[in-house]
Amino acid sequence: MNLLEKTLAEIENLDHNMLKAARERVDSLIKPPTSLGRLEDLAIQLAGITNNLYPVVDEKSIIVMAADHGVYEEGISSNPQGITYAQTGFFPKGLTGVCAIARVSGAKIVTVDIGVKGDLPPDSGVILRKIKHGTDNLAKGPAMTREEAIRSLEVGIEIAQEEMKKGVQMLGTGEMGIGNTTPSTAIVSVIGGIDPLEITGRGAGLGKGGIEHKAEVIRQAIQVNQPNREDGIDILSKIGGLEIGGMAGVMIAGAANRIPVIVDGYISTAAALIAVTIEPKVKDYLITAHVSAEPGALKASELLGIEPLVQMNMCLGEGSGAALVFPIIEAACSMMNHMATFEEVGMKI
Amino acid sequence: MNLLEKTLAEIENLDHNMLKAARERVDSLIKPPTSLGRLEDLAIQLAGITNNLYPVVDEKSIIVMAADHGVYEEGISSNPQGITYAQTGFFPKGLTGVCAIARVSGAKIVTVDIGVKGDLPPDSGVILRKIKHGTDNLAKGPAMTREEAIRSLEVGIEIAQEEMKKGVQMLGTGEMGIGNTTPSTAIVSVIGGIDPLEITGRGAGLGKGGIEHKAEVIRQAIQVNQPNREDGIDILSKIGGLEIGGMAGVMIAGAANRIPVIVDGYISTAAALIAVTIEPKVKDYLITAHVSAEPGALKASELLGIEPLVQMNMCLGEGSGAALVFPIIEAACSMMNHMATFEEVGMKI
Repeated sequence: MNLLEKTLAEIENLDHNMLKAARERVDSLIKPPTSLGRLEDLAIQLAGITNNLYPVVDEKSIIVMAADHGVYEEGISSNPQGITYAQTGFFPKGLTGVCAIARVSGAKIVTVDIGVKGDLPPDSGVILRKIKHGTDNLAKGPAMTREEAIRSLEVGIEIAQEEMKKGVQMLGTGEMGIGNTTPSTAIVSVIGGIDPLEITGRGAGLGKGGIEHKAEVIRQAIQVNQPNREDGIDILSKIGGLEIGGMAGVMIAGAANRIPVIVDGYISTAAALIAVTIEPKVKDYLITAHVSAEPGALKASELLGIEPLVQMNMCLGEGSGAALVFPIIEAACSMMNHMATFEEVGMKI
Repeated sequence: MNLLEKTLAEIENLDHNMLKAARERVDSLIKPPTSLGRLEDLAIQLAGITNNLYPVVDEKSIIVMAADHGVYEEGISSNPQGITYAQTGFFPKGLTGVCAIARVSGAKIVTVDIGVKGDLPPDSGVILRKIKHGTDNLAKGPAMTREEAIRSLEVGIEIAQEEMKKGVQMLGTGEMGIGNTTPSTAIVSVIGGIDPLEITGRGAGLGKGGIEHKAEVIRQAIQVNQPNREDGIDILSKIGGLEIGGMAGVMIAGAANRIPVIVDGYISTAAALIAVTIEPKVKDYLITAHVSAEPGALKASELLGIEPLVQMNMCLGEGSGAALVFPIIEAACSMMNHMATFEEVGMKI
C-alpha cells in the first residue's frame, strides 16, 4: 500500500456521539439558543473533527503549493509566467498578501515548490519537492501521468504530516501558479458537468476576448483528455495541476489526522473537489474560507457542498482567505472553552 | 457648549489626499489589482480615519453598554427582565459570548451600567454610570427626557475618551438589555419610514403572535411620541434606550478622535443611525461588523449605508460580531504595513 492509500484508509467518519455532545454543550452556554449562528455549527464540527468537546486550534500553518502550468503556452493568462518563480521566493520573506494576513493570527507560512518552472536556490526558504518543471499542456494531452498525480498528492500528505509533527492543529491551503484558474475551471467543469464558458473568469487579469479563448482551451482540454469524473486521480492527472494535487494531499492528510483544513478560494476549492472525489469522508474535515471573486467560485463551493464563511470579494489566492478566517474558527473554539453554562452561573434554562 | 456639542464640533471629514495616497499604496502592492477586495477598501478607510498611510489598530476595546427598558411591561420579550442585571455582572468575569470571542484578538471588554434596573455591587467590575433605572415605557410616552438622552450620549463619549487615553486604537460597540430590539426597531422604522411589522423580529426569543404584538407596541410608541426623524436626539429620547445612546456616544467620540468604531449587530446599527442622524460625518469612521439574524438588520444596514463585513447568522448582541471582525480589520492594516510593493521587489507593474 502506498502512502496515499495508507492515508486514505485512516480517514474516519466524525463520531455522532461527539457531535451530539457538542450540540448539547453549545445549547447549555449562557446565550439565547442558536444566537451564535454559524460559530455554533463550526464549534460542533471542530469538536467532531478533533474528537474533543473543548477543541483548540491555536497552532496554525498555511501550506502554499507553487507550480507552473504547461497550458500557459495557449495564452490563457496575461501575466508573465515567471511571476510564479519570483513570487514563490517572496513567501518565506513574508512579503506577500497571505503573509501580511497570517501575521494577525500568528499562522506560519510553509512554501513548497512542487512544480515551479525554474529552480529556486536552496537557501530560499522554500521547501523543494519539485515533481517536474510545471505540468504539460493539458490542451494537447494529459497535464501529468497518473504516477505524477499520485506523487503530488503524497507531497501534500508529507508536508502536512511534517507540520502536524511540529504541533500544528489547523492547516490552511494556499497556492501560487500563473495560469492555475485554467485547470481549476477544467476540474469544476468536469465534476459539475458545466460548460466551461459559464464559469471561466479573468484569473489574475484577462480581458473579455481572453475569457472566451480560455474557455475554448478548457473545452479542448476536456475533449482531448476525456477525464473520468468518478476518478479524482484521473481528473487531477489529465486536467489538473501539481499545486492542486499538493493541496488535495494536505486535505487528505488533515482528515486522516483529525485536523481541520481551511480551504482558501477558487483553486483550493477545485483541489477540495479532487480530494472528496477520491474520498468523500474528507469533506467533514474541511471548512471553506470565502467565496472568491472568480465567477466559478460560488459554483465550485456549491458542488463541494460547504458554505464558505465569508464573502470579501477577494481573489488573490495564496491562502489569503484561509488566513483571514483562522480567527473566526478560533472564536468558535473559544466559545466552547470559555463561555459559562447556565448551570455554572446558577441560571435556569 | 456641553460635552456633546464640543465633541461633535471636533469631527472632521476624511482627508481626500490621504484616501488617494492610500489607494495608490494599495495598488502598488505585489498582487493583481483589486485582488484583496474589501480588505483594500478597509485599508483605505482606515488610512483615512487614522490619517496614517500605515494604520495600526492593535489595541482594542469593546464597550458594552447595559440598560433596561420600561417597555418590557408591554410583554415584548419572553425573557425575564432580570437577565439584564445578571448578565451584566458576567462580562467583567469573562463568561459571556463576546468575552470568549474577544479573547482571540486580545480585545478588552469594558462594561458600563448606563441604566440597569437593579444596582450592581461596586466591586462587580462594571463601570457605574447609571442615568436611571431603565427607560420609561415608550409605548405610553417618551422613553427619557431630552436631557437624559444627551447625558446617555455623553456617558458614551466619556467612556470612549477614557479608553482612548489608555491607548486604545479601535473601539467596538456592544450592549446588554432585555427588550432592546423593541426601541431599535422603533428607531429603524422612524428613520427608514418603514411599517414596524415589516422588520420586527423575535429578539432573544418570542413566538409569532408575540411578534405581531411587539410590532403593534412599536407602532403605538411612534404614534404616541411623534419623534422628529430629522432630530437624532429627539428620536433617541422618545423611542430609544440608554444603552443605544451610550453606543451612539462611543461612535461620536471615536469619530472626533479619528478612531475606527466597529458597529456590532442590530441594536448597534440602530445606535449608529442615531449617531449619523445627529452628525452625518460620523459615518466615515464606522465599520459595520455583520448582518444580524434579526429581520430588520439588513434594512438597518442599508439605511446606514455601510455594507457589513460578514454574515454569520448571529444575533447575540453584546458586541460579539464586532469582536469577531477585529482580526479582519487588523489584516487590512497588516496589508498596508507588511506587504512589499512592486518597486521594492524590483518588478514592473
